[in-house]
Amino acid sequence: MKREEKIPARTIERLAIYRRQLLELKSNRLSHIYSHQLAELANNTPAQVRRDLMIIGCSGGNPKQGYGIDYLLNSINSILDNDKAGQIALVGVGDLGKAILSYSNYQRSTPSVAAAFDIDEEKIGKVIASCKCYPLSEMKTKVKELGITLGIITVPSVYAQKVTDKLVSAGVTGILNFAPATLRVPNNVFVERIDITMEIEKVAYFANEYSRLGK
Amino acid sequence: MKREEKIPARTIERLAIYRRQLLELKSNRLSHIYSHQLAELANNTPAQVRRDLMIIGCSGGNPKQGYGIDYLLNSINSILDNDKAGQIALVGVGDLGKAILSYSNYQRSTPSVAAAFDIDEEKIGKVIASCKCYPLSEMKTKVKELGITLGIITVPSVYAQKVTDKLVSAGVTGILNFAPATLRVPNNVFVERIDITMEIEKVAYFANEYSRLGK
Repeated sequence: MKREEKIPARTIERLAIYRRQLLELKSNRLSHIYSHQLAELANNTPAQVRRDLMIIGCSGGNPKQGYGIDYLLNSINSILDNDKAGQIALVGVGDLGKAILSYSNYQRSTPSVAAAFDIDEEKIGKVIASCKCYPLSEMKTKVKELGITLGIITVPSVYAQKVTDKLVSAGVTGILNFAPATLRVPNNVFVERIDITMEIEKVAYFANEYSRLGK
Repeated sequence: MKREEKIPARTIERLAIYRRQLLELKSNRLSHIYSHQLAELANNTPAQVRRDLMIIGCSGGNPKQGYGIDYLLNSINSILDNDKAGQIALVGVGDLGKAILSYSNYQRSTPSVAAAFDIDEEKIGKVIASCKCYPLSEMKTKVKELGITLGIITVPSVYAQKVTDKLVSAGVTGILNFAPATLRVPNNVFVERIDITMEIEKVAYFANEYSRLGK
């Protein structure tokens, strides 16, 4: 596809999910899949799957076999991965930070967490889930040295802006923020927030709606 | 508002975010706010804020003072909270589960986590972040006893479906799933998934797009 066309954020999210499902199918030695099967695995509709795959230039599958799994994986990789995909700095090695470190190293995701940062003397210098923990004062150096372009923020919300400023001034251009705080960043920095309290309130609302409407 | 009108999921998400910002403003003794101020705090546009508030029946604020904060809070509470808002069961007390327990008890969110479940004998019977940990075999009893209607799943993905089935058969109708697995549930159960790997891949993609387009 022409890289000038903008791919919607929701499509990017779904492509990441398709990729994980396809990798799992491939590890189970499957070679082809129909859109309705992929839709079921991704909790989605066949029409949506076909639309997403069309956006990234995947032509319709063979009616007898469906889409080739390797073909889909190559196409998705060409969108989601790129030479510039850098490494991640995780800031705040509490329970949540540790959970993400263990998880991301277990999943061998690209990009992966290359360095952790904390202010706690007990943690600094230690290796936690295969990732070394550094003091905040070394952030600038480590970001350059390790080719870090992304940050994950798992600090208490009062520190979130300070940590963001440090990450941005070290050269990070994408941030995944778990702190319940709205971050101010320059225009060229992308921030995504995972707001666990909000998600719980949303589930509570819709769980109630579903039972109220007898859906 | 007429409760028959369906409120979009994205509006519900934003209402939860507005509420948190409004509570913080209130604790700082503010009484009124303009839509553009709330938009800035919620990382949103003034038009979107006004639309969301209109959906829940909040009339435009006073041009001299903006919206009354108590008025907005009451209106949002009447949508997000309800008599049936139950308690939460969290299943899987690993790093992520512990992080959510400490966080949700610190935030005093409604609903809150009333019971934790795990298979690890070391954890069963212990109180972790003010929350008692029970064996899976007691799920049905505890769900009934404590008025639990929601579940949070923080187990490895291979166990996620099994845990879901147990939660659903115990009477849970809303699930927040952190396991990278697509869950099968009956039609009357609402599932929301937080997919950390997908979010990281999304941030990586857009961080790169932003720097590529020089945005």
